[in-house]
Formats: sequence, C-alpha cells, structure tokens
Amino acid sequence: MHRVQRQRTHNLLKRNGIARALFAHPESVTWLTGFVPLVEVGQSPFGFGPAPSLLWYEDGHFTLFFSDLQVDTLPDYTGDPDITVRKIEAYAVHNALRGVDAVIEALQEILTAASSTGTMGIEGNHLSMRQFQAIAQPLHPTGLRLIDGWLKPLRMIKTDEEITKLRRAFELADIGFAAAHNAAQVGAREIDVWAAAESAIQRMDGRRVPLGNDCTVSYRPFNIGAYPGEYVIRPNDTLIMDISAQHKGYWSDGCRTLYPSEMTTDQLKRHRFINDALDYAISLVKPGAKANEIDAQVRSFIERGDYPVYPHHTGHGVGVSFHEEPRIVPYNDTTLEAGMVIMLEPGTYIPGESACRLEDGMLVTHDGAEILTSAPRLMG
Amino acid sequence: MHRVQRQRTHNLLKRNGIARALFAHPESVTWLTGFVPLVEVGQSPFGFGPAPSLLWYEDGHFTLFFSDLQVDTLPDYTGDPDITVRKIEAYAVHNALRGVDAVIEALQEILTAASSTGTMGIEGNHLSMRQFQAIAQPLHPTGLRLIDGWLKPLRMIKTDEEITKLRRAFELADIGFAAAHNAAQVGAREIDVWAAAESAIQRMDGRRVPLGNDCTVSYRPFNIGAYPGEYVIRPNDTLIMDISAQHKGYWSDGCRTLYPSEMTTDQLKRHRFINDALDYAISLVKPGAKANEIDAQVRSFIERGDYPVYPHHTGHGVGVSFHEEPRIVPYNDTTLEAGMVIMLEPGTYIPGESACRLEDGMLVTHDGAEILTSAPRLMG
Repeated sequence: MHRVQRQRTHNLLKRNGIARALFAHPESVTWLTGFVPLVEVGQSPFGFGPAPSLLWYEDGHFTLFFSDLQVDTLPDYTGDPDITVRKIEAYAVHNALRGVDAVIEALQEILTAASSTGTMGIEGNHLSMRQFQAIAQPLHPTGLRLIDGWLKPLRMIKTDEEITKLRRAFELADIGFAAAHNAAQVGAREIDVWAAAESAIQRMDGRRVPLGNDCTVSYRPFNIGAYPGEYVIRPNDTLIMDISAQHKGYWSDGCRTLYPSEMTTDQLKRHRFINDALDYAISLVKPGAKANEIDAQVRSFIERGDYPVYPHHTGHGVGVSFHEEPRIVPYNDTTLEAGMVIMLEPGTYIPGESACRLEDGMLVTHDGAEILTSAPRLMG
Repeated sequence: MHRVQRQRTHNLLKRNGIARALFAHPESVTWLTGFVPLVEVGQSPFGFGPAPSLLWYEDGHFTLFFSDLQVDTLPDYTGDPDITVRKIEAYAVHNALRGVDAVIEALQEILTAASSTGTMGIEGNHLSMRQFQAIAQPLHPTGLRLIDGWLKPLRMIKTDEEITKLRRAFELADIGFAAAHNAAQVGAREIDVWAAAESAIQRMDGRRVPLGNDCTVSYRPFNIGAYPGEYVIRPNDTLIMDISAQHKGYWSDGCRTLYPSEMTTDQLKRHRFINDALDYAISLVKPGAKANEIDAQVRSFIERGDYPVYPHHTGHGVGVSFHEEPRIVPYNDTTLEAGMVIMLEPGTYIPGESACRLEDGMLVTHDGAEILTSAPRLMG
C-alpha cells in the first residue's frame, strides 16, 4: 500500500543527501502509508503528542509509530517489505497514561540503533519540541534539515490507488448533496440540512466519515461559507452546501447552491452565470495550463458579467487534505499535469444578501478533465 | 469567561517563579479561555501548526493566538481585562498560505516586547519544534521549564460556568441514547444506529457536535468498544453505545447497553448485575473517597458476582477532554472532592460473545453524587 509514494520520497531524500528523516505532519504520514488517524474527537487523551502518528525513514525503509487508540483500521502492509509498523502503548489499565514518553523512548531507541549517519530531515512544524529534543540530543553534532512541505509537490500527481479512494470520496459528497437537497425546505435550519447530509453519507460509506465544509444561508453576514447553525431557511433564501468527505484518508470537495423555494429571476440568472463560469473554468483545464492563468481568466469572466468577483481562490488540489497543491490562485504558476485532481469553484456573493457558488472536482487527463462530481448543477 | 481558570493558573505559575509561559495543548487553551477549536476535519490546511491555538501568559495577562479558519465562534471576552485576542492571518487570496510563519513572527514579536524576564514555562509536548526554536533563541540564556500536565490537577474542580456546559453536554448524550435506542433494530447496522444518534444530537444542539466513542455489537472480537461499522445487529445481540458529546469545548460521556431483540435470561441477569455494580460504585462517591479504593471495590464487586472483570478503568473525570483526572484506576490515590465531575463504568465482557457496560456521569457533591446522566439504565 502506497509504495509509489514511499519510492518518490526515497528518491527525493536520496537526491538531497538525506539518509534518515522523521515525518510528523498527519498529511505526510497518511500519504506515505495510507494510515488514517481518527479525527472525530480532536487530539485524543490516549495519543502521544500533537501528531497522531510519526514516520521514521532510514535508507529507503519506513517505520510507522502509532497508538492503536487513534486509528480505526490499520492498513494491510502484506507484501510491502519497505515498511514496519510499531505500536505505541498509550493505554493500559495498570499503568499511567504514557504514550508521550513511550514514543520518545521508541524514537531514541531507533535512533541509537540506526546504522546511517549524516543529515536528518525533520518536519519541524509538526514534530513536538520534546520529540525534537529526544532525537536532537543523540544526534548532536550531526545536522538537521527542515523538510516541511517537501512532499507537497510529490503529492500532486495521484496514483491509481489514490484515484480509486478519491472517486469514492466524491461519490460520498454527491450522496450528501442529494440528501441536503431533500432536507433544504423553507423553515428548516442549516443544521437540519447538514445532519441529513451527514447521516446519508455515513450510512452509504458504512462508517464514520470526517466532513467539511459549509452550510450557510445567504442572509448570513459572511455568506461565503460557515459551519451550519440554527439559521432558519426563509422564502427566497439560497443555501451554500459545500461538502468535503474523507474516504480512507482522501478528501473530496464540492459545492452546490440550493434553492429551497422557487427561484427568483435574479437567482436563476446568477446561477446560470456561475454555471457558465464553472464550464468555462473546466474548459481551461489541460496539461500545460498554468494555475495562475486559469485563476486570472475565471476572475475576468466573472468581472465581465458585472458580478462581484469571489474573494477566495479559484480552486485547489485535493488528496490527503481538502486543500492542497496545485492551488489555483493568483501567485501560483504551477503547470497542470495529467493525474492531478483539482477543484474549481467560481462564485459571486453580496454579503448578507445573495450567494452562489458551484464547485466541481476533476481529474486532469491527457487532453482535458474528467469530472468527478456527479451531482446536478441545478438542484432546485 | 473562564477567569477563575486563569486566576488559578496565575497563582500556580507565580508560586513556581514563572513569570511567562506558552500553552500549546488544546485542552489547556480551551480550559484557560473557553476557546473551542474545530475538530471535525483534523488539522486544517489553514492552521499554523499542530496546535489549533496558542496561549501566551505574562504576569497575569493572557494572549490568545488563533486562526479564524479554525474556530466557529470566538468567545466573548467583554469585561475580561486579563485576556487579549490576536488573530493570525492564515489565509488571504493574494498571499501564500503562511499561518505557520505568521504565528512564529507573532511569538517572536511578543517575546521581544515582553517586559518580564526569567524562567519561561512551556508545554513542550504540544509546542512544535519550530515554535520552540522561535522563542528559545531570543530567550537564551534564560531558562525554560516544561509545564506539561501542570494544569491537570487545577482542572479537576469544575466552576459553575463549566458545570453549566457539562450539564448540556450530558443532555446531548441522553438525546443520543434515545435516538440510538429507536434505531437499534435487528437488521440495522452499527453505523445506522450511530448516524441516528449523531443526527439527533446535532439537531438538538443546533450545531455540529464533536462525538465519541463506541457503537459495537457483542459478536465483534473486541466488543468493549469501537467505532461503528457495517456489522449487522442479529437476534440476541447486544449493542454497546458509548457517547461523548462536546458542548462549547466540554465533553460528556456515558454508556448504555442496548438489546435490539427480546432480552435473554442471561442478558437480563448480566444487565441487572452491572446495574447493581454501577449503583454500588455511585454509593462509594463522596468527598474524601480515594480513586484507587473505588476502583478496587468495584472490581471486587464484579469478581464476587463471578463475572469477568472489565479490562479497563473503573472511571475518570471529564471536562475539556473526555478522559481526565481524577482517573478511577488502580494506581491513582487522588481524593475525591466536591465539584469534580466523574464517570463510573463497570462492565463485563466475553470477547466475541457478550458485552454489558453501564456508565453514568456525576457531580461530586458535599455528601455524595448528583447523577448527570438521565437516560434509563435499561433501554430494552
């Protein structure tokens, strides 16, 4: 599982003269291993620090440290000789909770036993200060090198295994849009709509599904997106329903604007316009296109329609996070390549009044884009 | 909001000669400020490291650092002169994502401006290595002192404000038990039951509600507790439904064993026995009782009934986490005091066969316990 990712990383580290490394960012660990930590309760009292897992790299071999109370199902590494799993005991009835100290001891132990020397790469933005000190001391005076963010470019091109997970995550978002559409009636609250979508998604996937992002009526002051609350849907309101669903560590994304009552002429006009903007954006997607150029072109499209231009990104990649490279933003000149999975999300908003956003996910193909979002654009 | 907590902490730090400190554990920050970070999507791509927020302390004054994309509602500190809020810009459409660097700059700035010197307390298990380095460099050669866990004893006695939040969190768990009871039919899957409970809880609270812990049929190999899956409830199965619901940062807990079909004689016998064990456990709760003695007495009770003794804790405190001090475990001689909120959860399990657990939450009062869980013990 996820051997391609480990191979890409091994090549990158080797090229940079790094024979050993410690990964601490949850995104890095999931991408390198397929390991999916629980997120539903935040940082567990049975963990070993802020990172739900750590991944040690040495000369092409990886060791995954995890607490069994922070995972639902451990991936199957049968046939993967390049990875070893090491469970950290965080809870035992007859001992004090000691996951924090146990992982530090395990790190020191593996470092002492390490045969390689030289520069060690670390993800310093997510490794805890105490974990750092545990490895820095025996390491001294050998050098450390911060490798935060190094994997981000490697993560852009998805493997077939990742695309399979992502397709399922996009299906879950579609299920959510359909359930939200049914629940979005005048008089219902945002949370009623959200709960219906969440319930449908979890029952479809047969397990708990981490979910973002927005469920927001148009009259809220910040109507671009927010968590659902007790705001009641009134006649002529629109509802922004933006769903990211995680499947096996991989996040979809997507947005539909719902119309709980009969659409007004203005709403229909705006919706058609944003629908056209999304079609236009998709038409720009192909290998060789630059992210910032797509961003500029879609913004111009909205401007020419004389609508307020959305104050957010035009799009972004998805994978082990719901917002990653390639980001479709003004300052990013990344060139699109086949195998990337990206979102495009034009919208137009008048704060406190009206809101429309449509967002589709797509796989960049050799000559364009395969759309991964199946929900109808106009759900009424 | 939460001034009592800050005052207790100020007194503790002062007594230990610590004039400034940096708190990084989410539990510490929530307890000290009432700030509730979003947990639903894990570590956000719009955060500034593993901690969703940081709290700086200097001579009795606190400064809360947070990214507005990691919070639903910021607490109202009107009338609280001892706290200042500082928003870290993690996202702006025309700039690269820079929350990680922005918080480091903000920390360096506040440290440079600090008038006090001397030992700095830090929560080194949750502060990132890079955040640590940012403050350690200007600090040198002044000392650092690890203060991880220092707040845990201070958190045991709940304030009235906390008890109000906890009462609501327990009400939410009760709503969940009722919904689970209705959904737990033969032929339904664990996830169907869970989704019904989650939906009811969120609709009752009017917002998304972080939830743990277990929804598990008795024939699962590890039937003490696990996340819900596609296991179908069969005739004569029992279902362990253990719900922790978070309200404004405060977690309830609780467990009911559900009987989707008519109870067998053996199930009724076990249920009555565990019900008696819970009553017995509750009868032991009063100021002056020792945690480890309660643990030992409840284990003996189960043993005397000739049932397998649960392989987990007898109970624990709840608050800004769903498992905290005072832990009711063999090695903890903490003395109970009025104002503590604790769980007691006797059970008996035969892995892969039968399972029964009942768990109530309670406020320790001057002469006993006020039960905070209202769900019927036997829900059929």
